[in-house]
Amino acid sequence: MTAYDVLAIGNAIVDVIASVDDAFLVRHDLVKGSMELVDAERAEKLYADMPPGVETSGGGAANTAVGVAALGGRAAFLGKVRDDQLGGVFAHDIRAAGVDFEVPAAPAGPPTARCLIVVTPDAERTMNTSLGIAGNIEIADVDEATVAGARVVYCEGFLWDRPQTKDTIRHAMRVAADAGNKVSLTLSDPFCVERHREEFMELIRSSVDVLFANESEITSLYEVAHFDDALQHVRDDCELAFLTRGAAGAVVVSGDEVHVVGAHALGPVVDTTGAGDQFAAGALYGLTAGYDVATCGRLGALAAGEVIAHVGPRPQHDLRELAAPLL
Amino acid sequence: MTAYDVLAIGNAIVDVIASVDDAFLVRHDLVKGSMELVDAERAEKLYADMPPGVETSGGGAANTAVGVAALGGRAAFLGKVRDDQLGGVFAHDIRAAGVDFEVPAAPAGPPTARCLIVVTPDAERTMNTSLGIAGNIEIADVDEATVAGARVVYCEGFLWDRPQTKDTIRHAMRVAADAGNKVSLTLSDPFCVERHREEFMELIRSSVDVLFANESEITSLYEVAHFDDALQHVRDDCELAFLTRGAAGAVVVSGDEVHVVGAHALGPVVDTTGAGDQFAAGALYGLTAGYDVATCGRLGALAAGEVIAHVGPRPQHDLRELAAPLL
Repeated sequence: MTAYDVLAIGNAIVDVIASVDDAFLVRHDLVKGSMELVDAERAEKLYADMPPGVETSGGGAANTAVGVAALGGRAAFLGKVRDDQLGGVFAHDIRAAGVDFEVPAAPAGPPTARCLIVVTPDAERTMNTSLGIAGNIEIADVDEATVAGARVVYCEGFLWDRPQTKDTIRHAMRVAADAGNKVSLTLSDPFCVERHREEFMELIRSSVDVLFANESEITSLYEVAHFDDALQHVRDDCELAFLTRGAAGAVVVSGDEVHVVGAHALGPVVDTTGAGDQFAAGALYGLTAGYDVATCGRLGALAAGEVIAHVGPRPQHDLRELAAPLL
Repeated sequence: MTAYDVLAIGNAIVDVIASVDDAFLVRHDLVKGSMELVDAERAEKLYADMPPGVETSGGGAANTAVGVAALGGRAAFLGKVRDDQLGGVFAHDIRAAGVDFEVPAAPAGPPTARCLIVVTPDAERTMNTSLGIAGNIEIADVDEATVAGARVVYCEGFLWDRPQTKDTIRHAMRVAADAGNKVSLTLSDPFCVERHREEFMELIRSSVDVLFANESEITSLYEVAHFDDALQHVRDDCELAFLTRGAAGAVVVSGDEVHVVGAHALGPVVDTTGAGDQFAAGALYGLTAGYDVATCGRLGALAAGEVIAHVGPRPQHDLRELAAPLL
């Protein structure tokens, strides 16, 4: 008997979101659409120049867990916060969203992670993460019964940025596989793929059942110029892959089965933060609820379409109601 | 030479805003539309039952200072935060909004104030404030040159809830009056008026030049059933009063001069948080920029109309652009 449909493992982060013009990116030498890890000093400098913001819980895998719960799935999150004010906010929000989060707040160490997100007028988000204690997930934080009791264990590529966390995730993936459960990975970010290409390649071939990647991540992984080239490669390497392409929709590929799914706009695009995370939420909910992979892709597009129509990385409308016509 | 148009003195608070249904208010015995001071234990209980929220800088007088700056006025804020994460958020946001905030974060004492705001489907906000260090404004925190150099010193009634803060504000009001500047007060909340009616009455008659109150506050102050009765009283007691009435607009009264100003809707009402604060911002900007009191009332209605059309207590649109047709 499984206790959860999806256990998401990732960085526990509170987002600070503000609107800026493109000159802000130039001034601070930021690459639009990317995620950069920053130290405390650079974070301070960026924050000082940012306009007033709103704070809201984030973190890629945590957003996905919330999306799964919003669709009616049983979701848990594994990640690390300090016992500080932002740690309290993170823990409150994810639990209030119906996600189990049992890792106790650390009484010492670096502060809870914060991600400075600037949104440009074209709705693109550029992220600067001050990782703090989020990067310190230890093997001792992994409850093996929880991992073994989840149909899918979903991990974010960002976790590879800290060697210690990487070991923890490899351990969790082994526990999941031994229990006969599925292992899922998102590549998270094209620069993250640059940093860990070899390891990601090996991991996908050996341990990952369900892969999530956007167009720039998957082409970076295979070092190819065209999306279609990456698509042909991934068919050989992974049982099931969901490849997202922004406004161009998504492609679902599983061996000989290939589905092309349209984007699902719920309104004008306001803030793309969380688009990939919510796509994964819809698709993973669909998989664990027993739907075919094409429907899973459409559920992903729907959840992504909801989140980009408002500011903030987690659903604000009733996803179950929105998804009903698809099911 | 004055350095500021408006110096606002008030509680430095970070708001936690979430949408709830009316049953939440019943369950927690909350009076819709009111502000209640809560201790840490009750705050914890309320927060645990609240849905996921967004955090955004607030505090009545601080919101007003931000509104004045958004209209092009020179604004400063005097209030107190700790050197914790939410204190950092508060200080960043108010400075990024163009308001001078020079009081250093306290290295010890209670945490930065937090206000749990629940918004019901009728857009009414109900507030529960965990006052923390915000209530500890001491006379030593008041820079007399700053007070003497502001055309208007604007204080919030909420400051009367802590005896120490009250002494500080009386001191600041004296410094302002001695410098020949205007003293302004908002009654803040009907229950706040209940708690301090006698003192507010004495203060208005002796020290306040410009009064802000909504309908329930002003009728509570004079213990009268009808708005018009309160209106007749206030004419005798105060040089200039702005009395707001929600969707029914506002009345500006200065001796024999009375103006009735319509509400200025910018769209459907989403969240009334900050309506009174932004009304005051518009009116005080108008006064210090030399406009007649009727125009000041219309500027207040405009700024209030902007803030209730979105979630959050501070302006999100360009107030200068919106106000231009009125000036």
